Amino acid sequence: MHELVSRLLEGDRRAAARIITLVENNGQEKEQLLSELFPHTGKAFVLGVTGSPGAGKSSLVDSLVTHYRQQSLTIGVIAVDPTSPFTGGAILGDRIRMQDHALDRGVFIRSMGTRGSLGGLARATKEAIKVLDAYGRDIILVETVGVGQSELDIMATADTTLVVLNPGTGDGIQTIKAGIMEIADIFVVNKCDRDGADKMAAEVESMLDLGHGQNPYWRPPVKKTSTIDGRGIPELVGAIIEHREFATASGDFAERRGQQLKAEVSEIVEDYLKKMLWSKVGANAEMAQLLKDASERKSDPYTIARRILEVF
Amino acid sequence: MHELVSRLLEGDRRAAARIITLVENNGQEKEQLLSELFPHTGKAFVLGVTGSPGAGKSSLVDSLVTHYRQQSLTIGVIAVDPTSPFTGGAILGDRIRMQDHALDRGVFIRSMGTRGSLGGLARATKEAIKVLDAYGRDIILVETVGVGQSELDIMATADTTLVVLNPGTGDGIQTIKAGIMEIADIFVVNKCDRDGADKMAAEVESMLDLGHGQNPYWRPPVKKTSTIDGRGIPELVGAIIEHREFATASGDFAERRGQQLKAEVSEIVEDYLKKMLWSKVGANAEMAQLLKDASERKSDPYTIARRILEVF
Repeated sequence: MHELVSRLLEGDRRAAARIITLVENNGQEKEQLLSELFPHTGKAFVLGVTGSPGAGKSSLVDSLVTHYRQQSLTIGVIAVDPTSPFTGGAILGDRIRMQDHALDRGVFIRSMGTRGSLGGLARATKEAIKVLDAYGRDIILVETVGVGQSELDIMATADTTLVVLNPGTGDGIQTIKAGIMEIADIFVVNKCDRDGADKMAAEVESMLDLGHGQNPYWRPPVKKTSTIDGRGIPELVGAIIEHREFATASGDFAERRGQQLKAEVSEIVEDYLKKMLWSKVGANAEMAQLLKDASERKSDPYTIARRILEVF
Repeated sequence: MHELVSRLLEGDRRAAARIITLVENNGQEKEQLLSELFPHTGKAFVLGVTGSPGAGKSSLVDSLVTHYRQQSLTIGVIAVDPTSPFTGGAILGDRIRMQDHALDRGVFIRSMGTRGSLGGLARATKEAIKVLDAYGRDIILVETVGVGQSELDIMATADTTLVVLNPGTGDGIQTIKAGIMEIADIFVVNKCDRDGADKMAAEVESMLDLGHGQNPYWRPPVKKTSTIDGRGIPELVGAIIEHREFATASGDFAERRGQQLKAEVSEIVEDYLKKMLWSKVGANAEMAQLLKDASERKSDPYTIARRILEVF
């Protein structure tokens, strides 16, 4: 067993941080580490938190962490920050966020940045979840901005997904249109001290009345919270427990996790195959020439693609 | 040659619509159609317009279309709407948008919805651009919501990309953080009649001062527009021309388009390969069993993936 894995399983915080970094950087040891971790995963409850920028996701995550810590549960927080490599936002985020929990060993906080490739972010995040799971965290909160493809991918890993809405930004129907209706297990109208909170909650309810939502047996509750005075947080936690109980009883959790594992294997197989393909293209003059032909419009992409595959 | 392609090249509007539908639905004829179209593409100027929901992208596109039509240029508009299949937003969008141009044969408008898969949207959009290019449109405007992975993919196809910002929503720095700094060739502060427009423009300028932006030789200009009274539209059009001239002279256009074609071929090759893989997994009992093992946690994903690939 890799030394870092044994240290992780003994609860070594620095081993957890180190493994996530190695995984994020796609290091050589990544496969070995994740293979060895795997048998120790599957125990943590993964709570996804998503919504548009400025909806107050970070403060909400903060409030939830405080709540769970009062119950002595150990927490992992993964803040997915698709910030450009230029702004260095992910690193900054680590420092300025969650100051209240910075000294609490029961809270492990990690920001995941893109480092150039948005595509790799979803994968790295899923793997970081596994690391914190094996590390023994009871609850892992995953916070993502927006609802792009990679965020949807990430949210598919969550056992329960909160979609956070911000009244008074005109977020309402526009945001809901952008494909998040289907991923929400619970809607949170945050900043409920503001004007428009009731209206927004009512709008979401009426969309749900129209039959939207992903699961015919689970109507996502709409919860109003304020992270300023903590209003609504216990009710939100109650709703999370209810969803968890529903999903456990109905077999949805097991089903979702099984599907996730299948998807993960498929992804890895495809990655291996792609790597084989492109290392061959790199080494093969004919294939490289065909790619060059493509960029010079010497033939149409489909014809060139078929020729490359013939050579492969 | 496919009958639809000859009709398209003769300027048949219905052929254009039909081909886009066939391409979007991944129909059997798709490859033949796109191969035959290809030699007739590469002439249109592709203008990308992106920004957060509510930034006023549609109205801006409207204003630009009006402007270009006064110069007798023919226009294609592709509105990428990642609306869920449930809300049917894309279809609705077709009907309620751009009413001023509905009867103008010089304007071809098409909304692209996700139909279940966000991943396929970027591909279908790029292909629709090719269809309208071969159809002979002078300018193709591609409007997307947000800056998820698929939107970034789409914007990589544009010759010039406008990032539209909305003052007064607190959009400012938060939106800019979300990875769009690098894709903007021109920033548009829309709704400049509102409070906060100057402040937002100044914020963007100071981020640019800090050295952000994708190209060391092109500093994205920040243009203020109002689609209510048309203020700033001619200046914006001027900036678009300037960027076009810069990118043509510097070789950026040729380079960008060459890279795009290469990327496209790579995507197609990978798709072919994946199809081969999964049709084999479907037909092979051993591989199917391995996938089932994965969902039942019988072994770790990496080990199972490697075994599947060995069988393949």
